[in-house]
Amino acid sequence: MAGAAPVGCPSGVAHLDELEVPRYSVCMRQIEMKSAKFLLLLLSINLVWNIVTAAAPPTCPADIESDCSTGSGEWEGEFFPGIPQIKYEDWMRFSVAFWHTFRGTGGDPFGAPTKFWPWEDGTNSLAMAKRRMRANFEFIEKLGVDRWCFHDRDIAPDGKTIEESNANFDEVVALAKELQETFSPHRFFCEPSGDKDSSFVGYISVVPPPRYMHGGATSPELGVYAYAAAQVKKAMEVTHYLGGENYVFWGGREGYQSLLNTDMERSSITWFLEAAAAYKKKIGFNGTLLIEPKPQEPTKHQYDWDAATAANFLRKYGLIDEYKLNIECNHATLSGHSCHHELETARINGLLGNIDANTGDPQTGWDTDQFMMDVGEATLVMLTGGLAPGGFNFDAKLRRESTDVEDLFIAHIAGMDTLARGLRNAAKLIEDGSLDELVRKRYQSFDSELGAQIEAGKADFELLEKKAIEWGEPKVASAKQELAEMIFQSAL
Amino acid sequence: MAGAAPVGCPSGVAHLDELEVPRYSVCMRQIEMKSAKFLLLLLSINLVWNIVTAAAPPTCPADIESDCSTGSGEWEGEFFPGIPQIKYEDWMRFSVAFWHTFRGTGGDPFGAPTKFWPWEDGTNSLAMAKRRMRANFEFIEKLGVDRWCFHDRDIAPDGKTIEESNANFDEVVALAKELQETFSPHRFFCEPSGDKDSSFVGYISVVPPPRYMHGGATSPELGVYAYAAAQVKKAMEVTHYLGGENYVFWGGREGYQSLLNTDMERSSITWFLEAAAAYKKKIGFNGTLLIEPKPQEPTKHQYDWDAATAANFLRKYGLIDEYKLNIECNHATLSGHSCHHELETARINGLLGNIDANTGDPQTGWDTDQFMMDVGEATLVMLTGGLAPGGFNFDAKLRRESTDVEDLFIAHIAGMDTLARGLRNAAKLIEDGSLDELVRKRYQSFDSELGAQIEAGKADFELLEKKAIEWGEPKVASAKQELAEMIFQSAL
Amino acid sequence: MAGAAPVGCPSGVAHLDELEVPRYSVCMRQIEMKSAKFLLLLLSINLVWNIVTAAAPPTCPADIESDCSTGSGEWEGEFFPGIPQIKYEDWMRFSVAFWHTFRGTGGDPFGAPTKFWPWEDGTNSLAMAKRRMRANFEFIEKLGVDRWCFHDRDIAPDGKTIEESNANFDEVVALAKELQETFSPHRFFCEPSGDKDSSFVGYISVVPPPRYMHGGATSPELGVYAYAAAQVKKAMEVTHYLGGENYVFWGGREGYQSLLNTDMERSSITWFLEAAAAYKKKIGFNGTLLIEPKPQEPTKHQYDWDAATAANFLRKYGLIDEYKLNIECNHATLSGHSCHHELETARINGLLGNIDANTGDPQTGWDTDQFMMDVGEATLVMLTGGLAPGGFNFDAKLRRESTDVEDLFIAHIAGMDTLARGLRNAAKLIEDGSLDELVRKRYQSFDSELGAQIEAGKADFELLEKKAIEWGEPKVASAKQELAEMIFQSAL
Amino acid sequence: MAGAAPVGCPSGVAHLDELEVPRYSVCMRQIEMKSAKFLLLLLSINLVWNIVTAAAPPTCPADIESDCSTGSGEWEGEFFPGIPQIKYEDWMRFSVAFWHTFRGTGGDPFGAPTKFWPWEDGTNSLAMAKRRMRANFEFIEKLGVDRWCFHDRDIAPDGKTIEESNANFDEVVALAKELQETFSPHRFFCEPSGDKDSSFVGYISVVPPPRYMHGGATSPELGVYAYAAAQVKKAMEVTHYLGGENYVFWGGREGYQSLLNTDMERSSITWFLEAAAAYKKKIGFNGTLLIEPKPQEPTKHQYDWDAATAANFLRKYGLIDEYKLNIECNHATLSGHSCHHELETARINGLLGNIDANTGDPQTGWDTDQFMMDVGEATLVMLTGGLAPGGFNFDAKLRRESTDVEDLFIAHIAGMDTLARGLRNAAKLIEDGSLDELVRKRYQSFDSELGAQIEAGKADFELLEKKAIEWGEPKVASAKQELAEMIFQSAL
Repeated sequence: MAGAAPVGCPSGVAHLDELEVPRYSVCMRQIEMKSAKFLLLLLSINLVWNIVTAAAPPTCPADIESDCSTGSGEWEGEFFPGIPQIKYEDWMRFSVAFWHTFRGTGGDPFGAPTKFWPWEDGTNSLAMAKRRMRANFEFIEKLGVDRWCFHDRDIAPDGKTIEESNANFDEVVALAKELQETFSPHRFFCEPSGDKDSSFVGYISVVPPPRYMHGGATSPELGVYAYAAAQVKKAMEVTHYLGGENYVFWGGREGYQSLLNTDMERSSITWFLEAAAAYKKKIGFNGTLLIEPKPQEPTKHQYDWDAATAANFLRKYGLIDEYKLNIECNHATLSGHSCHHELETARINGLLGNIDANTGDPQTGWDTDQFMMDVGEATLVMLTGGLAPGGFNFDAKLRRESTDVEDLFIAHIAGMDTLARGLRNAAKLIEDGSLDELVRKRYQSFDSELGAQIEAGKADFELLEKKAIEWGEPKVASAKQELAEMIFQSAL
Repeated sequence: MAGAAPVGCPSGVAHLDELEVPRYSVCMRQIEMKSAKFLLLLLSINLVWNIVTAAAPPTCPADIESDCSTGSGEWEGEFFPGIPQIKYEDWMRFSVAFWHTFRGTGGDPFGAPTKFWPWEDGTNSLAMAKRRMRANFEFIEKLGVDRWCFHDRDIAPDGKTIEESNANFDEVVALAKELQETFSPHRFFCEPSGDKDSSFVGYISVVPPPRYMHGGATSPELGVYAYAAAQVKKAMEVTHYLGGENYVFWGGREGYQSLLNTDMERSSITWFLEAAAAYKKKIGFNGTLLIEPKPQEPTKHQYDWDAATAANFLRKYGLIDEYKLNIECNHATLSGHSCHHELETARINGLLGNIDANTGDPQTGWDTDQFMMDVGEATLVMLTGGLAPGGFNFDAKLRRESTDVEDLFIAHIAGMDTLARGLRNAAKLIEDGSLDELVRKRYQSFDSELGAQIEAGKADFELLEKKAIEWGEPKVASAKQELAEMIFQSAL
Repeated sequence: MAGAAPVGCPSGVAHLDELEVPRYSVCMRQIEMKSAKFLLLLLSINLVWNIVTAAAPPTCPADIESDCSTGSGEWEGEFFPGIPQIKYEDWMRFSVAFWHTFRGTGGDPFGAPTKFWPWEDGTNSLAMAKRRMRANFEFIEKLGVDRWCFHDRDIAPDGKTIEESNANFDEVVALAKELQETFSPHRFFCEPSGDKDSSFVGYISVVPPPRYMHGGATSPELGVYAYAAAQVKKAMEVTHYLGGENYVFWGGREGYQSLLNTDMERSSITWFLEAAAAYKKKIGFNGTLLIEPKPQEPTKHQYDWDAATAANFLRKYGLIDEYKLNIECNHATLSGHSCHHELETARINGLLGNIDANTGDPQTGWDTDQFMMDVGEATLVMLTGGLAPGGFNFDAKLRRESTDVEDLFIAHIAGMDTLARGLRNAAKLIEDGSLDELVRKRYQSFDSELGAQIEAGKADFELLEKKAIEWGEPKVASAKQELAEMIFQSAL
Repeated sequence: MAGAAPVGCPSGVAHLDELEVPRYSVCMRQIEMKSAKFLLLLLSINLVWNIVTAAAPPTCPADIESDCSTGSGEWEGEFFPGIPQIKYEDWMRFSVAFWHTFRGTGGDPFGAPTKFWPWEDGTNSLAMAKRRMRANFEFIEKLGVDRWCFHDRDIAPDGKTIEESNANFDEVVALAKELQETFSPHRFFCEPSGDKDSSFVGYISVVPPPRYMHGGATSPELGVYAYAAAQVKKAMEVTHYLGGENYVFWGGREGYQSLLNTDMERSSITWFLEAAAAYKKKIGFNGTLLIEPKPQEPTKHQYDWDAATAANFLRKYGLIDEYKLNIECNHATLSGHSCHHELETARINGLLGNIDANTGDPQTGWDTDQFMMDVGEATLVMLTGGLAPGGFNFDAKLRRESTDVEDLFIAHIAGMDTLARGLRNAAKLIEDGSLDELVRKRYQSFDSELGAQIEAGKADFELLEKKAIEWGEPKVASAKQELAEMIFQSAL
């Protein structure tokens, strides 16, 4: 790249850091590929990609009709033939979500699965789980992302007992450990809650029992509570073993369908969270524990509705220093807030731990988990500072109707581009300073002696009344919202 | 009526108390009236009213074309001629909201005022303010309600300075004090925030300056903050003087329209709340300070979005013991929750202080402040216990198109009836016990030794895993939601 | 029961008809049952049921561990042992939805199936399909309902080709035909579109291909369009053969996910509807063809969003006399309307053909398909007249967490009760006449010569201006909304 | 500027026309101004403006404390001193909405007016009306827009009778006529319904009677219907006289608050629309009559909910050729649709007449009427073709808290820029062709003989079944939604 920054690359990561932008930055990636059709599409849309033409070596395509297995019976073919590695010069701690990308089936409440990836054999065997894990590593390698994450123990098949499930889990984890060390620097990133319903059953003939249908940590059934604890315990150990940086509690069923049959006071999520924090310390796991607020769906209400709600119960039960929040943009809008609002709320409460970079449809009332494609929204996300040491997890899934293997790449690349453009825009806005200045000026009357007294909690009503009478009718300036919006849009 | 309880009256208030229903109860009221048309309407709908035919004495109708003023220039006519007192045998601490009932004009974003009450003369004079206060007391007297409340200083005209405004205020307050002692046992109930925009300008020719357009306690203008403090200080003194039981902070503008021009961290509502709590102690006011959560409208976001959000900032700033919450049903649904949910959330957080008994339209996205007319909703409201010492404030307004004086009575009576029916239904459900039993059974596995350990925070993951392995796959019972709903509906 | 009407039964069906209530009516049913637990629950909630204690004869319970099959290999046990027939004296043309009740699995976007009915053997065989059909007939027999309906060909397993699927279909249809003649007067009621995604795959190991993922009648793939036509053709023939009264087009996928990849103009649903109407005539099917408006979910937008939208395309393409509408309450609220509004809109457009009696959750943005349990809502539904010859289809499903066989009965019984109470309330309101009178009076100024001219389209602007000038400022009466609401609530 | 196109100007308007982009185009405007503060703000945000420094001649500032009136008593000062004309090289038929810009007061349901423009004297006199009209013309002149529009007769004060109101109206219209001829080529653009509530009463002491509170054309009061007819008649005459191009029916109150007191069948809007169409022909007015769909607010439901609903009643009553639609983006989203969807629906129904270029807040449920600032949304708007001969009306208002005169300019300029950028992006997408190609390919199987038969209504079910059996399981391609979104975003 000698000297020439790729088009669209903010010059100087260090510079960005000085500006106190969030601690990540990105340049547009270089891409090389053989697939002529795909290449032309990408070229035709004039994205800022520098194509390097070095061809990848021939490999065995990982279609189940091919035979790429080695003597050991393990599959070692190439899952994404024709797609080379897409290089980044720098990164935003992106993470690929195993559950959407490799366990999502396209099923929805009205329809059956639509994804039949060529490497899947229709079984839920251990061998299939390992092959899928290899596909995962090839995928993130080629995408140039170096983090990944999974749900519960969805990387391995369930067994009939906890012990059997754990054994299966261990076997796949061992492979993941090996692969993530081989494909350095791919690091394990986040690992959700363990109290999640087995929702990604795909086209699998064995159906798990609905043990978490009333929740896990908030189930009214004692046995389920214990089971969930055992599951999280194991998952946390595995996270620790794999060098995980985060452990996320996604409480999709931790809520109620109807208050009529619920004792909300007794459905406390906090005993479980206390025990989890204690166990983390016991095993010496140093990653961050995260709550992922989610307002509703699949239940009518979930106990961690939004950032403020989660902050409240963390404070109430003395857990405010043990957990941070994983803000998901689609969850934000479902709770009636903008994603920007939830990020700011988390930040102000000292709880911004990680971001699930997805988006919803503004006209639909459920979790669509789309890839974030709106540059304006991405810019707002990037304007929120204070994210450390978290990153951006692609908790996003292909539309049910997007069924080509290349769609997996297109979606992730477009999502990465959108966030990268968001970051550049945020950097531009911060460098320009107009927006910050507009805000600073609005509040400048508080940069005074009385303002300082107020903010120190030392201005009582009598003093304030005295001042108010002395000053008479206060002058109130224009809020300049349209100007702020104009400045913002001009940076896009 | 000798001896016979009116139809619809739960027998035995004491009995209700024993059942630990909320500490209020109600019987259907007896009504006597002259207005033949009104009477027939009421009769024709077969409500459970006992009409007593004693005619009211002739009075001077308080139409501005009449001259009912005494020598002192004060108006002393009858504002609601033809409508006698509507008697209750007992009460639910109902309160009439002066702002909706006497200052609401029917104006909306697309239309001008529609209410031209006969006693209004089109001015905003002190004399008019006093006449209006007399109307208020006649209204609550006839309605059989013995609490009332007002917003800010909306019972008196603004002056040009704080001192002048306070003097006007004092003059009307003196009349209110006199009237509420005369019309024993009318007691003053709640008094909102003082940081409220002057929204009920009606057909008044003097327009107040938009001093609170960016908020009061969260305004970025220091002078506005001081002005709001002075206003709340005075309002709190008046509340204390009048024997008020509550002082509510309604933060309709305490929020933002756009995060682009807002420093949410600096817009902290808490310095103000701290100063208010301190001033309360200083003057010896013993009423309850209340926050009224409100999600949006008129701003995009308000800082006290819902009960959990308010609980969070109260905890964060050490104010959790200084404030309680005033839950409004219409605000609940706008924040994405049912009213029942917000009440339960407040109760579980120890914050249920008072209820604004209104409702919204399930298909509209703004605050319609309708009178609660749904018996099912009222029953759910009444099922929530723990409300003490608060009551039910009719923070509800006539539809813009309801323009008859008698509509004021119809709406309040229907609202009272609905809540009374809700209470009877709740009592029936509690007496019957089926619903409680259904819930108790769902959670009974926690009524065990291990359950007790868990709820005491003493069951760690290792113990739980051991149990889970020992027990195997947990049994999960049906949630019986349809049965719970059937039981609930059968009580209506 | 000699002579005495059951409690809660409106006296005189004929009388109701005279009042021009919708042409159905209902009395509370008599119930007899052995299940002590169930019985006590029902008794304890004081519903108006008369229990007849006659015990049912011993039968073979249709649990797959029992062996109730006859020599022919067909299963002939009792699926709901301990539950006797629940008698109605009259009926509302209720219909049980096979898809929810017998093919619903409890799966949702985040979770696996939860329903494992004892008669299911985990296969998707023809034998299983027949056993399920027997369960269906026992269910509706015991429930006292005499209509049922199914989706597409979901009563039979798919084959590998259209011919094979049709053969399977025919075999199960033959059994249904036999059963519905045996269990007289069970009549076949409605049969949906055939262009539906196979959404009720349950815990079946064979996954159907996602042929309808882009829609059926509006698929951009010609082959899918043809396939959908073949499927609807067959389904319509079967409907005709079974004596079906309705044939409903449920277009759950007939919409788009994004306008960016859609040619909405070319995605016309109307060619298909024209061909369907023509085929109906060709085979001499006399039932009603119905469109079921549905706003969104699973797609972002469906082409038959609401009643007015469907009316528009029916008019545009000259199909207004060929189709009627099947209004679903939950779809109504998702499209931003009340169910009452959609029913009235359909009625005024001459299109009210049938009702899917379910309800949604007012705080959730997706199709929850709950049993209608709100008596107020049911009363509004019943106030809409003009429904002929349609009826009420229980397009409602048990909550995912309701997993007992008896829950199927509880939910249907509660739904029937709710609608029955709604009907009684509607009858009461109509008999009382106050509400009709209130409305009539509001519009009475149009009952004049000029009003008649206007409504005949003969009053031009010049005449109207002349009158307006002559009359001066018009008087505008109160809308009396609170009174209307009070009257309505008083009837519940 | 000799030869050099301003930055951001698409080269070649003719070229755009060839591409069949909507028939308008725009270049970024050149701006010259004296206001140093304003200038710096604009410069600092790096917008693509070429500043020409020619100073405007000294003028009399139109502050009411100045005396700029001529001998005739008419005010002839400069209302926007320091702001020069902002030049466009081309235009998009932009129109300024008099009601928001000159009659909007900033009042909202919770607050009093906030706008006190310097030229307003607090009266509602004819002199004030004329001065305001001069301000309007100076504003559009300086903005470089050459269309404007008003509501009802809101450019003139109401009188006590229709005749008096008409006389006032005529006097202001005469001035407008004169001014629009002087300020050539300022042309009159649209003129709304006349059946609108007087919602912009601002700080005016005379309150109009609430004659339209139950609607105008759908009022249950005959006198109101006649009055509305007289008002629309006059407004239509004035529109014709001023050379208006559009006459819009905005039916903000043409709906209901509750179905309980409404006879929706009798509340037909169509008699009125028929009479209006007849009167249009009678007076020889050649402009377009337009319906502006609006879902709710201020009423619960309006009869012209969305484009499809309006199309339905226009078809039902034979008015489909007499009216077109004025699509407002904020109304679109309130009805549950994207703006793009409503535009496409109108286009496909042959009804796209004009666009109200505003936007709403995605998290609020009421009509915020914000200036469209989202380039993505603007691009989608511009992708819809078929808009002729309409244009873009800024039916948008300053935020209540934006109170500087310059905010009026900032908001309009930012709105114009956004739409201009949208147009350039749309042109880029059309030129590039990738998106069109993607869509074309999705539907190409219909570009066959059978496809043609289907689209001609000639393929019956038997033929289709034969084909389906012949072809076997259809192949279903990926929908490529993420790729479509990626292409779209890459053009922004």
